[in-house]
Amino acid sequence: MKRKIGILTGGGDCPGLNAVIRGVVKSAIIRRGWDVVGIEDGFDGFLGPGKFRPLGLAEVRGILPRGGTILGSSNRGNPFSCPVERDGRMVETDITDQAVETIKGLGIDALVAVGGDGSLKIAMELMKKGVPIVGIPKTIDNDLMETDVTFGYNTALETATYALDKLHSTAESHHRVMIMEVMGRYAGWIALESGISGGADVILIPEIPFDLVTVCRAIDERRRRGSAFSILVVAEGAYPRGGSRVVRNRADERHQVERLGGIGDFVSRELISCLDMDTRVTVLGHLQRGGSPSTFDRCLGSRFGISAVQLIEQEQYGQMVCLRGRDIRSVPIEKAVRRLKLVNPRGQMVTAAEELGIAVGR
Amino acid sequence: MKRKIGILTGGGDCPGLNAVIRGVVKSAIIRRGWDVVGIEDGFDGFLGPGKFRPLGLAEVRGILPRGGTILGSSNRGNPFSCPVERDGRMVETDITDQAVETIKGLGIDALVAVGGDGSLKIAMELMKKGVPIVGIPKTIDNDLMETDVTFGYNTALETATYALDKLHSTAESHHRVMIMEVMGRYAGWIALESGISGGADVILIPEIPFDLVTVCRAIDERRRRGSAFSILVVAEGAYPRGGSRVVRNRADERHQVERLGGIGDFVSRELISCLDMDTRVTVLGHLQRGGSPSTFDRCLGSRFGISAVQLIEQEQYGQMVCLRGRDIRSVPIEKAVRRLKLVNPRGQMVTAAEELGIAVGR
Amino acid sequence: MKRKIGILTGGGDCPGLNAVIRGVVKSAIIRRGWDVVGIEDGFDGFLGPGKFRPLGLAEVRGILPRGGTILGSSNRGNPFSCPVERDGRMVETDITDQAVETIKGLGIDALVAVGGDGSLKIAMELMKKGVPIVGIPKTIDNDLMETDVTFGYNTALETATYALDKLHSTAESHHRVMIMEVMGRYAGWIALESGISGGADVILIPEIPFDLVTVCRAIDERRRRGSAFSILVVAEGAYPRGGSRVVRNRADERHQVERLGGIGDFVSRELISCLDMDTRVTVLGHLQRGGSPSTFDRCLGSRFGISAVQLIEQEQYGQMVCLRGRDIRSVPIEKAVRRLKLVNPRGQMVTAAEELGIAVGR
Amino acid sequence: MKRKIGILTGGGDCPGLNAVIRGVVKSAIIRRGWDVVGIEDGFDGFLGPGKFRPLGLAEVRGILPRGGTILGSSNRGNPFSCPVERDGRMVETDITDQAVETIKGLGIDALVAVGGDGSLKIAMELMKKGVPIVGIPKTIDNDLMETDVTFGYNTALETATYALDKLHSTAESHHRVMIMEVMGRYAGWIALESGISGGADVILIPEIPFDLVTVCRAIDERRRRGSAFSILVVAEGAYPRGGSRVVRNRADERHQVERLGGIGDFVSRELISCLDMDTRVTVLGHLQRGGSPSTFDRCLGSRFGISAVQLIEQEQYGQMVCLRGRDIRSVPIEKAVRRLKLVNPRGQMVTAAEELGIAVGR
Repeated sequence: MKRKIGILTGGGDCPGLNAVIRGVVKSAIIRRGWDVVGIEDGFDGFLGPGKFRPLGLAEVRGILPRGGTILGSSNRGNPFSCPVERDGRMVETDITDQAVETIKGLGIDALVAVGGDGSLKIAMELMKKGVPIVGIPKTIDNDLMETDVTFGYNTALETATYALDKLHSTAESHHRVMIMEVMGRYAGWIALESGISGGADVILIPEIPFDLVTVCRAIDERRRRGSAFSILVVAEGAYPRGGSRVVRNRADERHQVERLGGIGDFVSRELISCLDMDTRVTVLGHLQRGGSPSTFDRCLGSRFGISAVQLIEQEQYGQMVCLRGRDIRSVPIEKAVRRLKLVNPRGQMVTAAEELGIAVGR
Repeated sequence: MKRKIGILTGGGDCPGLNAVIRGVVKSAIIRRGWDVVGIEDGFDGFLGPGKFRPLGLAEVRGILPRGGTILGSSNRGNPFSCPVERDGRMVETDITDQAVETIKGLGIDALVAVGGDGSLKIAMELMKKGVPIVGIPKTIDNDLMETDVTFGYNTALETATYALDKLHSTAESHHRVMIMEVMGRYAGWIALESGISGGADVILIPEIPFDLVTVCRAIDERRRRGSAFSILVVAEGAYPRGGSRVVRNRADERHQVERLGGIGDFVSRELISCLDMDTRVTVLGHLQRGGSPSTFDRCLGSRFGISAVQLIEQEQYGQMVCLRGRDIRSVPIEKAVRRLKLVNPRGQMVTAAEELGIAVGR
Repeated sequence: MKRKIGILTGGGDCPGLNAVIRGVVKSAIIRRGWDVVGIEDGFDGFLGPGKFRPLGLAEVRGILPRGGTILGSSNRGNPFSCPVERDGRMVETDITDQAVETIKGLGIDALVAVGGDGSLKIAMELMKKGVPIVGIPKTIDNDLMETDVTFGYNTALETATYALDKLHSTAESHHRVMIMEVMGRYAGWIALESGISGGADVILIPEIPFDLVTVCRAIDERRRRGSAFSILVVAEGAYPRGGSRVVRNRADERHQVERLGGIGDFVSRELISCLDMDTRVTVLGHLQRGGSPSTFDRCLGSRFGISAVQLIEQEQYGQMVCLRGRDIRSVPIEKAVRRLKLVNPRGQMVTAAEELGIAVGR
Repeated sequence: MKRKIGILTGGGDCPGLNAVIRGVVKSAIIRRGWDVVGIEDGFDGFLGPGKFRPLGLAEVRGILPRGGTILGSSNRGNPFSCPVERDGRMVETDITDQAVETIKGLGIDALVAVGGDGSLKIAMELMKKGVPIVGIPKTIDNDLMETDVTFGYNTALETATYALDKLHSTAESHHRVMIMEVMGRYAGWIALESGISGGADVILIPEIPFDLVTVCRAIDERRRRGSAFSILVVAEGAYPRGGSRVVRNRADERHQVERLGGIGDFVSRELISCLDMDTRVTVLGHLQRGGSPSTFDRCLGSRFGISAVQLIEQEQYGQMVCLRGRDIRSVPIEKAVRRLKLVNPRGQMVTAAEELGIAVGR
């Protein structure tokens, strides 16, 4: 049966989105002869005019190695819940129905929604209003349940490890404490895995509120054993025991004025007061989202895209594709968005870090 | 209980071996206060004198990002089966007992054997003679059963994909057919996954004997649709339907005289005779084994090393560590070496390639 | 004065060609409001129909980091000298006049010819027939006189050095002699500079016919001093003293059947007969031409493109842009193509190699 | 004549320092049989005890591809001018004589001083007190006169361009203004050249105090022409016309508390007030100093090291090695440190940027 499917990419961009789009387009067109419509700028695309375009093979040519998303994205929360003036007052109004109308008007039979936690929840709202949806998980923090890993995460790890390799030389040459702040608001996966791969000495993650005394002691012990430098990897959402989270607001803020209050800077100031050592902070920031996707992410993104089309073919709506071991499977979207996949403080990965002599701040 | 453990790396080198060694050394020393002995050049190390050295924290400093193995390796088959002169004739003799004596003489309580199929089989022979063994899988081809993947494979994929990205520009600029031959004697994983990630048009693997007519037709169809170039990825062990394998002997040959007979060249010659197009062959060869390991391989290698020490602590001898999903587990070595993990011609990965419009030669 | 200029890229592709094209298009359009016509597939583009297209800002968007040339190229010698049937016999005929007619017909005021030795000579023929020409040097071998260096060369060096870094780990782990064959038919620049940067032990270049005894001795001495491995970098045009060149024909051959006879293989076989060591050959080949250009090449290519437009503005025809120190200058094309820029066997670079203990085969 | 030479690396670390050290050691030992003494932590090494060690071939093995400096460095200004207590008060005292005594005591015949502006001035003080000195220029900002370029700069450019490539994808996907702050306190070379290579839309450098209105207009015009994102590269020393420099103090400050006042953040805040667009700031910071040196820097560093040894052999003291075109030359140190090599606002490089449509803020 010939179908017309839509695809959109929501939330922060990450490497591999174009591989997903290409996978959807190629498998829909080459094998099935379907039509594909690209919706621009995530769910925002259903609200503005002229934000749809047909995606053919020509449109996806050469995009596999490219970062970002050719469809654009948006990460400003739910665009379907917006303030509308009524009786002289602004009232938060659900305009999901308007989006549903648009989708029907376009003749879209099913929608592939690529996004994280937030985007998938919006997708489920559309689903409840009758739009057949298939989800593809996207989270650079790797904090989505029900999938071993998502595309983009591996590239972010490569970027963070590459940065740690670079910082090592300066740390060693100048006997410094180098602090690198990486992404991970609630989940410390990037910090933990890049820290292990980059040979960090201390890794601080949101799941283990850290004790500054322990951190200072770890660095001091290294110094006494002859290593006059240390490398710390700090997830942006890490916070001191008894303290509270001082994360920057990624999506809502126009300018990151809170940088001074970033956790990397906080740790730096605290270390100076307990150790007589130079410290330097590097905030990796958006570099983690960018660039050509790694092999792993290109392959996984392509496979996710293909599987989403297969799910539509089988009319398995409301499902999200996922990776289990080496296989692509699917699970109900609602199961995946119920809660975040956090690092287990007693799990294998944290234990591995500690076995390697890395302090995790406890 | 304080222990003295030995570690050796056998078979072809691959990125991540040093991460394994570092993981073993750090977890044995820091947490447990054990002693570690490094055996040089794989199992050969048990035969020559002076091929052992204590491995302390200083020896593993800075080796995490480095390719190769600081212990050296050997890939000349089983060194314990060697020709000895007896009554004026050379007789193949098992000198495993001699190795066992050496191990006992060194006071080694348990041995961590890092290696592929061949090395693990030798390790099992030692085990039968009373040497407590724990295995760590190593195969750049990713063809070992019982583990989702091994370290080194991901770096090899990155290298192959990086090469495909490079070949694309020349192929496109000169309207050529570029053929890249990659590793994979029995298993086509590298060809398949790098081909998907590198946007190949044709992928030939040992598991699917290829039909040249199909291959020519795929390239010709691309040309007729306006793409005057094509990229082929060919596993070294691929062969034409009805034909036989023309692989180069990696380990035994001193010089790769058979290069002309390599499958890449064979395919090139055949394509010229059926298509009027320029072709060029690139044999990626040893580049796939080298270089700094990717994040994935550094992390996996470290975790494998740590887990091997944990297995020794629990006296779970005869086991091999493995990756299942995101977890490190263990399986009996004998189960892992029983047969190779080949690509399933009807499995997800081949299907994904075909969904993307890639010809797999059938 | 508004002008219409043409641009073509001839000869083998190399990283930075798209930077040149973008530089020409941007500087012609943004500042001067000129028109730019892209000619496809080098000088071949003047012969076939439909091989011209207007190049606007949209056409050059996003091409800066991309390898190859969006215009395509051709490296089959002079297309204007071709066999034409006359009186039943094939006669070599000069069809340059036909190309001149095409150029006039297109209303092209001046032509930017990007190419090496061969392409620039063809450009001068067009110049003699009245076509105003400005040349941009292109040679991945860096063998063109009158410019310190050309774009593409630096990227090729990076690729070769990256490969040497990779081969080092295998060489060291397996106590092998690794031979890497790089480009450089007449000039050994790539071999020499990548060999120095990649820590090679032996470098063989066309400018210094090598003595095999010297090469063997160098490797043997390393072994006796405890380094059981060696890395050789061999330019494809290197040859033994008293012997003759055994290069592969890059442009004319459809299939590189002579690979077995490549100089890397020759050296390998010879080394085996004088040393009892494993050797492995890697032919880097087309990988050197491909991929995203390095910063240096992107910047130099952009500046060359801009300067070519400036030369046209000043009506300085017959000139070729070039790099001297940090400045872009220009020289008469005929001066640049008179002879090749070879490595001086007594010059600084060879001396540097020898000071580092690298054997150059003499 | 057999000599004993010393070598030290002063100032901020940069990629290629190890290539220099290796070049000095190899050329001194292999060809000349000299002795080499490494002094640790720059000029600080002459003050503390036990900060010298003999450098042989074994010490420089494998360091060519490694970032940083195996000798350590120091960038805390002149260690020979230090506060000493006298009569109960702290008095700034010149202890250069003490260093000279140490050098004589070590039997060092000549000293190779690798460093920037500051370190070379200290070296000249030692020279005046009778220590034979040869200088090697080191400045990651490329702001040292008398040399076309120094090692480390090319790697820093690669890092900055790589980061710009990454930021491009996010900028494009989210229609954002991405601001990247790079090194360059007085000289804008890194910003200018990486901005050209990375396809920036605006480049702000210290040599051209910028007009915010011009910058806003440039971004706004792009938006009106349909490019909803822009990339800005800002040198840390850039400042608004009529304003003053707000640089962070690299060397003296223990913690970069002024980050909020960094020029990148300043520009970000100003842009938000004149444009209704998202902006994001990335401070590249120490990433620019780190990592494996590029081919160019490995080769240049090696050649500088060799040339320094040749200068000592010729007793050409007080000279600094330098690059001119493709050749290594030498100049008097005092000539090189007289003033900084700044970007010429009317020179080729700025003009090139403007020809490409890049706004430089004027």
